[in-house]
Amino acid sequence: MIKDMKWWGWGDPAFVFPMDEKPLLWPFVRKSLGLTEDAPQTPPVDRAQVKLPERRRSADFEAAVAAFLKADQIAADDEQRLIHTYGKSFPDLFRVRRGIVSNAPDLVLFPESHEEVERIVAAARQTGVRLVAFGGGTNIVGGVEHLDPSAVRVTLDMRRMNRVLEIDRHSWTATIQAGAPGPKLEDDLQALGFSLGHMPDSFEFATLGGWLATRSAGMQSDAYGKIEDMVVALKLVSPAGTLSTKLTPKSAAGPDLDQVVVGSEGVLGVITEAVMKVHPNPAVKDYHGVLFPDFESGSEAIREVIGRRAAPTMFRLQDVDETQLAFSMKSPSTGISGFIQSQVKKYLKAKGYAQPCLMMVGFEGEADYAAEMRRKVLPMLKKHRGFHLGNSVGKTWAKNKFAVPYLRDILMNHGCMVDVAETAAVWSKLMPLYHAARNTIKEQFKKEGYPGYIGCHISHSYVDGASLYFTFAARQIAGQELEQYYRFKRLITQTFMENGGTLTHHHAVGYEHRPWMERELSRPGLEILRGLKRTLDPDNIMNPGKLILPAGPEALAPAPEFEVPR
Amino acid sequence: MIKDMKWWGWGDPAFVFPMDEKPLLWPFVRKSLGLTEDAPQTPPVDRAQVKLPERRRSADFEAAVAAFLKADQIAADDEQRLIHTYGKSFPDLFRVRRGIVSNAPDLVLFPESHEEVERIVAAARQTGVRLVAFGGGTNIVGGVEHLDPSAVRVTLDMRRMNRVLEIDRHSWTATIQAGAPGPKLEDDLQALGFSLGHMPDSFEFATLGGWLATRSAGMQSDAYGKIEDMVVALKLVSPAGTLSTKLTPKSAAGPDLDQVVVGSEGVLGVITEAVMKVHPNPAVKDYHGVLFPDFESGSEAIREVIGRRAAPTMFRLQDVDETQLAFSMKSPSTGISGFIQSQVKKYLKAKGYAQPCLMMVGFEGEADYAAEMRRKVLPMLKKHRGFHLGNSVGKTWAKNKFAVPYLRDILMNHGCMVDVAETAAVWSKLMPLYHAARNTIKEQFKKEGYPGYIGCHISHSYVDGASLYFTFAARQIAGQELEQYYRFKRLITQTFMENGGTLTHHHAVGYEHRPWMERELSRPGLEILRGLKRTLDPDNIMNPGKLILPAGPEALAPAPEFEVPR
Repeated sequence: MIKDMKWWGWGDPAFVFPMDEKPLLWPFVRKSLGLTEDAPQTPPVDRAQVKLPERRRSADFEAAVAAFLKADQIAADDEQRLIHTYGKSFPDLFRVRRGIVSNAPDLVLFPESHEEVERIVAAARQTGVRLVAFGGGTNIVGGVEHLDPSAVRVTLDMRRMNRVLEIDRHSWTATIQAGAPGPKLEDDLQALGFSLGHMPDSFEFATLGGWLATRSAGMQSDAYGKIEDMVVALKLVSPAGTLSTKLTPKSAAGPDLDQVVVGSEGVLGVITEAVMKVHPNPAVKDYHGVLFPDFESGSEAIREVIGRRAAPTMFRLQDVDETQLAFSMKSPSTGISGFIQSQVKKYLKAKGYAQPCLMMVGFEGEADYAAEMRRKVLPMLKKHRGFHLGNSVGKTWAKNKFAVPYLRDILMNHGCMVDVAETAAVWSKLMPLYHAARNTIKEQFKKEGYPGYIGCHISHSYVDGASLYFTFAARQIAGQELEQYYRFKRLITQTFMENGGTLTHHHAVGYEHRPWMERELSRPGLEILRGLKRTLDPDNIMNPGKLILPAGPEALAPAPEFEVPR
Repeated sequence: MIKDMKWWGWGDPAFVFPMDEKPLLWPFVRKSLGLTEDAPQTPPVDRAQVKLPERRRSADFEAAVAAFLKADQIAADDEQRLIHTYGKSFPDLFRVRRGIVSNAPDLVLFPESHEEVERIVAAARQTGVRLVAFGGGTNIVGGVEHLDPSAVRVTLDMRRMNRVLEIDRHSWTATIQAGAPGPKLEDDLQALGFSLGHMPDSFEFATLGGWLATRSAGMQSDAYGKIEDMVVALKLVSPAGTLSTKLTPKSAAGPDLDQVVVGSEGVLGVITEAVMKVHPNPAVKDYHGVLFPDFESGSEAIREVIGRRAAPTMFRLQDVDETQLAFSMKSPSTGISGFIQSQVKKYLKAKGYAQPCLMMVGFEGEADYAAEMRRKVLPMLKKHRGFHLGNSVGKTWAKNKFAVPYLRDILMNHGCMVDVAETAAVWSKLMPLYHAARNTIKEQFKKEGYPGYIGCHISHSYVDGASLYFTFAARQIAGQELEQYYRFKRLITQTFMENGGTLTHHHAVGYEHRPWMERELSRPGLEILRGLKRTLDPDNIMNPGKLILPAGPEALAPAPEFEVPR
């Protein structure tokens, strides 16, 4: 029922990234990062070498939960402790691959109902145990790692709470348990004729509760919204009691409490279920590739189409560098089709597409609705010099869309640092922000004296702006791997903040982004979050150290990026 | 610059409701409410009879603000105190018409900048003065009335802060001061080629800040969103400092603080400015009337159209009783057009439209966009038995849309109680809720032994549900007017709560809805609001008694509907 990822990397242990089918990819990577043939291999340590730390125990807590949980809902074995130690950030993987797991949980619980979560949280409050809620473990900002070294640390694996509890066919809403992972949730809904339509990169493993806790954005957010736009009501088990928000399309009864819980990253309590907007499972999913002569033209095209309310289901626009990476993942065409493609390439080059930017645009819905959208949108893209590549590119993209994150493990096996950083800004600031971030990282590669890769795509678009999603990679500096990583992470984040970008558009804060939260929210904004924490979790037992620090001397401690537990 | 409403009623003192042009209206009202020819007239008292209470003074506060405000920014005269005493709820008007103004502010300030508001709030905190922010004074749930009898009470009239500070033509956002009233805000934006498109009933007088503080919904919210959907960033001056939220289309940096401030009704601080989404001023505004054989058919038509993403700019569907009221407001047709209309009426009656429900549907935007929407939507409405009346009905509606609230003053002059109540629910609960509320009120009229009117319309629609807006009226019971009103108000609100409706969809909480807030939000939800209050306004100087009460013994005081100050 629960599909764990590789303990040392991303995704399904059985999946092998099809490098053989992509003969252009590895040469592209080697050239971009300056990897030599004889570069050292850096595989993860053997599982047998990973020594879990001694378990801290709370006899009171264990007795309390043993009273209402079955034996198979309580795990303290090394396997479960290891799997639940980290998310999948670069520092997470770097450490786990070296066998550094000092923050492993002491106990892992598998609640099966809202009521069990309530009883666990109550027991934790009584005994001072620390609780982290764990969904798919896909978080990449440190969201699920235990940080408090002074306490017994318990992780709640929510994935046994994975059912669609109720479907309201008339209102197009579904009540879903928070531990439902993407595939099960979609399968269950689609069996009922509906879809949530939330497909972030983490889709195969992450859960509804994790998405809600982090304000996740799916690839089709242009049509279906970010997760915060889909939520109608929810339940949060906090140490101060269960918050149950109103089931209503909209309300004027004070601040929107759904929007207080969404993005709270487990620090206020555990989300156990939510009523979500769903829609009839689309009959058609039609994805097309379009080439633009540059990033600006593509970006302007998106802005115009969305402004005219002709919004497709998805826009994804890759910059020059990411387009080259994407092209390197194609199987090379041979024979007639190879000949045609090379002619098209020559033609495009002559027309100003020497350094093209690739856009994927998607049309989902009833057949006539999708077709009409396509007929409306493609000419608007053409007006902005979009060259229509057809839907075969779209099919290839759709097939491979969840494979890319697996590539990082291969790079890490070859001594490389690789990570992503994302932000959003209003349109007037978007391109300056893009260039500032790209140039900053490129200059840093130059300054540090080694080649590196940085690529970017627009991943989510709005009437007033869009998000930018960067991927950067370089060879690791042996012995300084984490320092090197945090140097780049800090640089790009700082550049976002100085150029009108938000701290994070959909990866959340965890502890990696925490040092910038006051700048992001203003001082009273930070105090609001601290006040929420005091109200719902006065003893600071819920995911301590994430999102914000409580007020007081502790808040003056150095930012954790300089003190990642090793 | 500042256009005050009548001290004793709604709207422009110079506007006279054109009763003469509507010869069918008064007979309809008289019949519905059982008004006899010789019913007593109940005009407001003479202005000269209204005695303002003695001013309480804080020499320290007055000295503090005199140091940075000009003389004309400080008012303590009876005229200003009277104008700023109340909003426009039925209990507000009932009291002011009798000269009951015991809660008049002691001082009215007219800040002209964000910085002045900061200094006023700081001075208030130091001296313990209570502050209420006042926009158009259109609130109908008690939102702007001072309630704390123990303190010096100061009202901030925000309407000198009424400028569009900045337009971002690329991002379609505008930075607007909170005191900008609807008409000025729209005029200024339209001069720049843009529109906010927020047109609630209060449009002519209410301000942006008031709309944000109360989660207002404009008539065209189906296309442009409620006010909370339009806000991108804002500034809130709280006693704990100025919260300045991030300018970004979306973020994952914790809970959404815009959505904490929106709906906070002045209890956390004063909103001074906001960055709002705007859109190019629509070239076409095309409104049509459509008749349905019953409320259910019309409601189902809306649900289907919105579900298919063919959403028009506005849907407004009136039930049988409200349709009759609307028809009674028409000028009677004579000659040929009268003959044609009577034939149409006969035809419709024969076809099952004996008790029809009138829908207004609006299409705004570029000419081709609006036309395409119309071509798509009208056939879908027809499928649900919608009979297209054409756009002349729409033109009449658009012309009169802000006149209806004036009718209440006339009714109150004739000894009538009249008020509105609104809610929202998911589609599956909407029609049962509608019937429950309507029947409850109708039965109450019967029980109390006098005729009464209750009508309803769907005013705002969503994929997952819609709002219901009720108007009810009856003759007053002399000597028990407020008790009678609160009996009905309580009954209908209770019916909303018991049938899956939200406490309020867009009128906010004030003190009228406060007794239901725990039921609406759950206990931890209430505690969240109290915690927010403690964080931003620890001394409870901002609009005390609204939205929530602080925790503690005070919370146990009787609900204020039983103790309206007289």
